[in-house]
Amino acid sequence: TVDAAAADFLALSKEFAKFEEQNKTYVSHLDAVYTSQSKNLKDLSHHKYRLAQISESLKKLKDLSPDEKVILENLKIELAQRKAQLNDIAGTLPAKNNIYLRIVLGNVNVSLLSKAERFKYKDEYERFKLVVTVISTIWSFCNLFLFEHRVMDAAFHFLLVWYYCTLTIREGILRMNGSKIQPWWVAHHYISTFQAGVLVTWPDTVIYHAFRNQFFYFSLYLGLVQMLQYRYQHGQLYKLKALGERSSMELTVEGFHSWMWRGLGFLLPFLFGGYFLQLYNAYTLWNLSKDPRCHEWQVGICAIVFFVLFLGNTVTTLIVVKRKFQQ
Amino acid sequence: TVDAAAADFLALSKEFAKFEEQNKTYVSHLDAVYTSQSKNLKDLSHHKYRLAQISESLKKLKDLSPDEKVILENLKIELAQRKAQLNDIAGTLPAKNNIYLRIVLGNVNVSLLSKAERFKYKDEYERFKLVVTVISTIWSFCNLFLFEHRVMDAAFHFLLVWYYCTLTIREGILRMNGSKIQPWWVAHHYISTFQAGVLVTWPDTVIYHAFRNQFFYFSLYLGLVQMLQYRYQHGQLYKLKALGERSSMELTVEGFHSWMWRGLGFLLPFLFGGYFLQLYNAYTLWNLSKDPRCHEWQVGICAIVFFVLFLGNTVTTLIVVKRKFQQ
Ligand SMILES: CC(C)(COP(=O)(O)OP(=O)(O)OC[C@H]1O[C@@H](n2cnc3c(N)ncnc32)[C@H](O)[C@@H]1OP(=O)(O)O)[C@@H](O)C(=O)NCCC(=O)NCCS
Ligand SMILES: CC(C)(COP(=O)(O)OP(=O)(O)OC[C@H]1O[C@@H](n2cnc3c(N)ncnc32)[C@H](O)[C@@H]1OP(=O)(O)O)[C@@H](O)C(=O)NCCC(=O)NCCS
Repeated sequence: TVDAAAADFLALSKEFAKFEEQNKTYVSHLDAVYTSQSKNLKDLSHHKYRLAQISESLKKLKDLSPDEKVILENLKIELAQRKAQLNDIAGTLPAKNNIYLRIVLGNVNVSLLSKAERFKYKDEYERFKLVVTVISTIWSFCNLFLFEHRVMDAAFHFLLVWYYCTLTIREGILRMNGSKIQPWWVAHHYISTFQAGVLVTWPDTVIYHAFRNQFFYFSLYLGLVQMLQYRYQHGQLYKLKALGERSSMELTVEGFHSWMWRGLGFLLPFLFGGYFLQLYNAYTLWNLSKDPRCHEWQVGICAIVFFVLFLGNTVTTLIVVKRKFQQ
Repeated sequence: TVDAAAADFLALSKEFAKFEEQNKTYVSHLDAVYTSQSKNLKDLSHHKYRLAQISESLKKLKDLSPDEKVILENLKIELAQRKAQLNDIAGTLPAKNNIYLRIVLGNVNVSLLSKAERFKYKDEYERFKLVVTVISTIWSFCNLFLFEHRVMDAAFHFLLVWYYCTLTIREGILRMNGSKIQPWWVAHHYISTFQAGVLVTWPDTVIYHAFRNQFFYFSLYLGLVQMLQYRYQHGQLYKLKALGERSSMELTVEGFHSWMWRGLGFLLPFLFGGYFLQLYNAYTLWNLSKDPRCHEWQVGICAIVFFVLFLGNTVTTLIVVKRKFQQ
């Protein structure tokens, strides 16, 4: 009946009054947190500036007595510790978006202010890569063995444009939140976006068909390697998390290192296989671009891009492995 | 000297101790705000659910006495008011990303929790559109009168792919934060992304050249119309802001409406001009697709897409104008 509904609503209204009160408190607390956030940011840059000043002044010192040298060394250690502390504090505060994110997203705040949030975001990023990799691997397979039509090829290249573009956005967010992804891997995804774009515009010529199958075999291989890479990176993410939680004592730093080297030892041959294929693609395309039937500008460009990718990937991976070895 | 630097550092360390303390307080307040945020979200959905239940039960009522009808009417008004109140509260809480944002950005929180932030974000969105529109207008002009090369055309189409893609992301963020953009305009930008993608793949044929110039004239016109649209939408944004700030009494609701109708009256003929050109593009392309020299699938697809855009734009604009007229 109407009366029952009215009574219901009255009861709900009493609850609502409390809820409204609670929401008001929340909003005022939120405002207070924003205010103290700005204050923290100001203090942070002040401390960074003063620290840089002191570091600068130390560099200028000359002709020190042995006593002074001891003080200097101690001071340097303390400065390094302070920098680490400031970094920890910076992790609790929102960072400014880099220029790319500012252009694509605008000035919306995409900071992840807790370790748990950052872990979740990274985990999701890896899973996203896996899902698209599986799709693109299946698609490469179909393009190779089931249908051969330029429209399906173009749709595949568009998937890649979209995928690499999305990766650059997500990696921008990750880097803003303190991930130490090598700049090359991000650059790699910008370059790959460009390359997929060039492949889209390649018309359906004899030369295109001379390269098409090699390209999809390469994509197939890349997809499989990326699945292995997922296994490694996913494992590493979870191990590092366990390592960070001091309560779980199952995992030691040595245990982590031996796990990592086993993983890397398995992964690296496949990675270098992929880089070799990139070099081979560059070589094939370069020869094709010399073919008298070739009138397309895409061929030479793609050859150069594959070579750049080969070079950057090989050098970066070698540097990363060397650094890990020295640690 | 070293001693001076050490003294400096000591002084800074005292400041730092205070700063660290303050940062700890900030972090604990932040955690508390997050906790109360989750609590608020839970309560919000509880209230929404109960309200829907009561509304549902009212619909089932039949054979009411006149007294009961009065109660019913009052109850309905109160329910509507409560819904508006709940919406206000929802504006202070983060919303869940829609599926598109979840795929592109992942589960990062892009809520703008205050009116000032939302205004700034929208303002920036309009400015972003203006900047890209100016660039694409100049580019169309150059493609028409200065250089004629398929590569420059392809680069232009890629700019459009990127631009419309970016718009869909930003509009996703805007909608999540309560903007009432008609779904059609968002759909329009998805469709435009697709169309620009198709144009990229169109090879350099006779048919392409038969349509090329018409397309760039159309782009030129569209750029100019979008600049007019910017003037209107930018003005509206600032007027609405002034209207929202009760302190500034210069602007009345009537003043706003007369301003809006003047702006619309100026803008609408240009908009309908643009829609007519879209129809004309569809017509031209349809005829070209019948041409015996035409072997490209892109022509028919583009014709259909232009027709869909013409239809959607015309219908939506008419509906919007009619709704504004009735208010
Ligand atoms: C060589 C490799 C296995 C080392 O991985 P690693 O042990 O995680 O390397 P690092 O210690 O330098 O990682 C630093 C950070 O960068 C991330 N990272 C490393 N390689 C990455 C890649 N290719 N893409 C994205 N992120 C990467 C790590 O996850 C880590 O992130 P975190 O700071 O948020 O924890 C890895 O870089 C890799 O897989 N590279 C090959 C990529 C490639 O060649 N792709 C093309 C295939 S042919
Ligand atoms: C007709 C028109 C002028 C009405 O604008 P309006 O008065 O702002 O319309 P509404 O009151 O429906 O606006 C509701 C919301 O949608 C936004 N909006 C309206 N049209 C929009 C569009 N085309 N793109 C993005 N946002 C739009 C408004 O800014 C407003 O946002 P808010 O809720 O955050 O304040 C506008 O919709 C328009 O310019 N349409 C033409 C777009 C077009 O045809 N483009 C292709 C050119 S040929």
